[in-house]
Amino acid sequence: MTISSNHLDIAVLPGDGIGREVMAACLEVLSAVETTASGGPPLKTTIWNAGAQYYATSGEALPDITLDACRKADAVLFGAMGWPDIRHADGTEIIPQLDLRMALDLYAGVRPIRWFPGLPNVLSDPRARDIDFVLIREQTEGLFYARGKGELIDDRDAYDTMHISRAGTARVSDFAFRVAERRQARGKKARVTCVDKANVFASMAFFRKVFDEVAAKHGGIEADHAYVDAMALTMVKKPWTLDVMVTENMFGDILSDLAAGLVGGMGMAPSADVGDAHALFQPAHGTAPDIAGQGKANPCAMFLSAAMMLDWLAEKHNEPRLETRARLIESAVEIALSSGTVPIELGGAAGCATVTRETIAALPSAI
Amino acid sequence: MTISSNHLDIAVLPGDGIGREVMAACLEVLSAVETTASGGPPLKTTIWNAGAQYYATSGEALPDITLDACRKADAVLFGAMGWPDIRHADGTEIIPQLDLRMALDLYAGVRPIRWFPGLPNVLSDPRARDIDFVLIREQTEGLFYARGKGELIDDRDAYDTMHISRAGTARVSDFAFRVAERRQARGKKARVTCVDKANVFASMAFFRKVFDEVAAKHGGIEADHAYVDAMALTMVKKPWTLDVMVTENMFGDILSDLAAGLVGGMGMAPSADVGDAHALFQPAHGTAPDIAGQGKANPCAMFLSAAMMLDWLAEKHNEPRLETRARLIESAVEIALSSGTVPIELGGAAGCATVTRETIAALPSAI
Ligand SMILES: CC(C)[C@H](C(=O)O)[C@@H](O)C(=O)O
Ligand SMILES: CC(C)[C@H](C(=O)O)[C@@H](O)C(=O)O
Repeated sequence: MTISSNHLDIAVLPGDGIGREVMAACLEVLSAVETTASGGPPLKTTIWNAGAQYYATSGEALPDITLDACRKADAVLFGAMGWPDIRHADGTEIIPQLDLRMALDLYAGVRPIRWFPGLPNVLSDPRARDIDFVLIREQTEGLFYARGKGELIDDRDAYDTMHISRAGTARVSDFAFRVAERRQARGKKARVTCVDKANVFASMAFFRKVFDEVAAKHGGIEADHAYVDAMALTMVKKPWTLDVMVTENMFGDILSDLAAGLVGGMGMAPSADVGDAHALFQPAHGTAPDIAGQGKANPCAMFLSAAMMLDWLAEKHNEPRLETRARLIESAVEIALSSGTVPIELGGAAGCATVTRETIAALPSAI
Repeated sequence: MTISSNHLDIAVLPGDGIGREVMAACLEVLSAVETTASGGPPLKTTIWNAGAQYYATSGEALPDITLDACRKADAVLFGAMGWPDIRHADGTEIIPQLDLRMALDLYAGVRPIRWFPGLPNVLSDPRARDIDFVLIREQTEGLFYARGKGELIDDRDAYDTMHISRAGTARVSDFAFRVAERRQARGKKARVTCVDKANVFASMAFFRKVFDEVAAKHGGIEADHAYVDAMALTMVKKPWTLDVMVTENMFGDILSDLAAGLVGGMGMAPSADVGDAHALFQPAHGTAPDIAGQGKANPCAMFLSAAMMLDWLAEKHNEPRLETRARLIESAVEIALSSGTVPIELGGAAGCATVTRETIAALPSAI
């Protein structure tokens, strides 16, 4: 695919709470990196409304015009959405990120976890510095298939159904193997672990079976299995042994938060929601009502999510100069963190503005 | 209730692999503690067959005679069951522990997690030494309701249904508050946290609602909520702030393994499966085929499970001398660990026999 115009269109959805703060910071970083690493298509960012606070004024959480812009854009950059006091009329929370996953068929939740020099050690074992794995979460079915479909009978029995499809499992497994292949090409370990509960559930035994079929087509990559409970233990005991994992939607939700904790928290955990046609990039954290508006948010996960976006665009458009920009952002974050800028979230004193300034200041030396 | 005969009947199910090894060690400790702390009803332990290795010879994983003995006993002491190569004819694994939970209606999975002096620090924050919480896992419904009922249609779509009932949620929530009340009476923190995914699932919103109703009846105990993904993060970031938690079956399975990892692993994690009429006590670990038969198993979780059994019997029969024995076992484990006996599982050199010998040796000084 070639780039149709001379720029790439990015739909920017800052959302609520600290989503807005880290997004503003991120747009600064993205524009600084374009100046530092000249060449390659510029990004044209357009801000769109969505989220709980927008819902409070308009009655719409994800307006059609925003959804449409996401569909048309080359990529979506997303802050965070939701607010405790603002809910749909039926009392449910405002979660446009889940709607977007379904609407744009963003089936692969990509959650890379790695330790950055300068970060406090959460685990006492020094091997924790070698943590470098990717969790791939299926995002269009699994238990989340039940969202909006659950039944409550006579205020006595509630039911939610988990759905695992052959197609859904095959595509996300295949995605995981392609991630592993790219890791292998960069000289990294590249084992894919299917994380399930095949010992108890028919749907999970099916997930494993389809995974195995896909694994057989990727002979160059080692494949194995783990039960989700055992994986939660492994993540705590020896996360440095992990590489690429693929799992069901709900399990992936739990494990990815656990994993983020291992490297300091949600403020260090970027993520990508990727489909065959679209992709959305967002930090793994939420809107953090407790610290919103105080300048305390850690924008690193947002910056690293933008780097994931540049990587994805680079591959899609076969444009290595976008990849250069992604590496620049990552290195600048690394330099900022390892030269004493410790975000408040990680026990330091650096607020959002300081982390942003130091990251931008590090860009020239990151080349 | 008074004790009907002069002894208590304990049905002992060693099971498979290291289950047998840690159970043999535990019976030694139980008999030593009876000698050390004389008085109170003696335990009469009877060993019963069940498990994968028994299935291989008999075709039955949980024979009626064993199930019947469990029903009649005052308590069940359980090692571990299951073996990778031995499966039911349909390929599913042999998991009598799940059958027992259903058959004996053991609705509350009690999983206490605390740090023992002498244990290696898994988390680098020194506050991790204050870890002392209890996870209560609902064990008769939730996603596990689907076990054996899952549907696979045309080798294309698989479905498993999660079931949350009002009665099931109310009784396990009430159980959690009673645990908190006992903690409070012992001067410990006593907040109960409902761990759910009420923001996405109807069944989980219902779980939270019923929990809130039960909480209202226990005014003396603080109650709050957390989403399961956020709880996985909290367990890694600040587990010392946690107290009593109650959650759905599948979530509890994942979180309890995570939690065990925080204090060194499954070999330090005891558990109890408690119902209104029966109770079963087992270490949280499995049969560990990789180390079975080598004398390397860590029996501490089995000893601590036996202590939980003595506590449960003490309360049920209003017999403080059983509680004395429970405290003795716990203290002896603590003394053994903190005086240099480091189990192999925790990076030390002490095998099952050494840990057992040192624990028994510590009993007199534990009084
Ligand atoms: C906001 C919430 C519904 C969402 C999820 O559960 O998927 C979030 O936790 C995430 O991981 O993206
Ligand atoms: C053996 C397995 C089916 C079981 C479970 O999932 O409940 C175990 O993990 C546990 O936690 O007791």
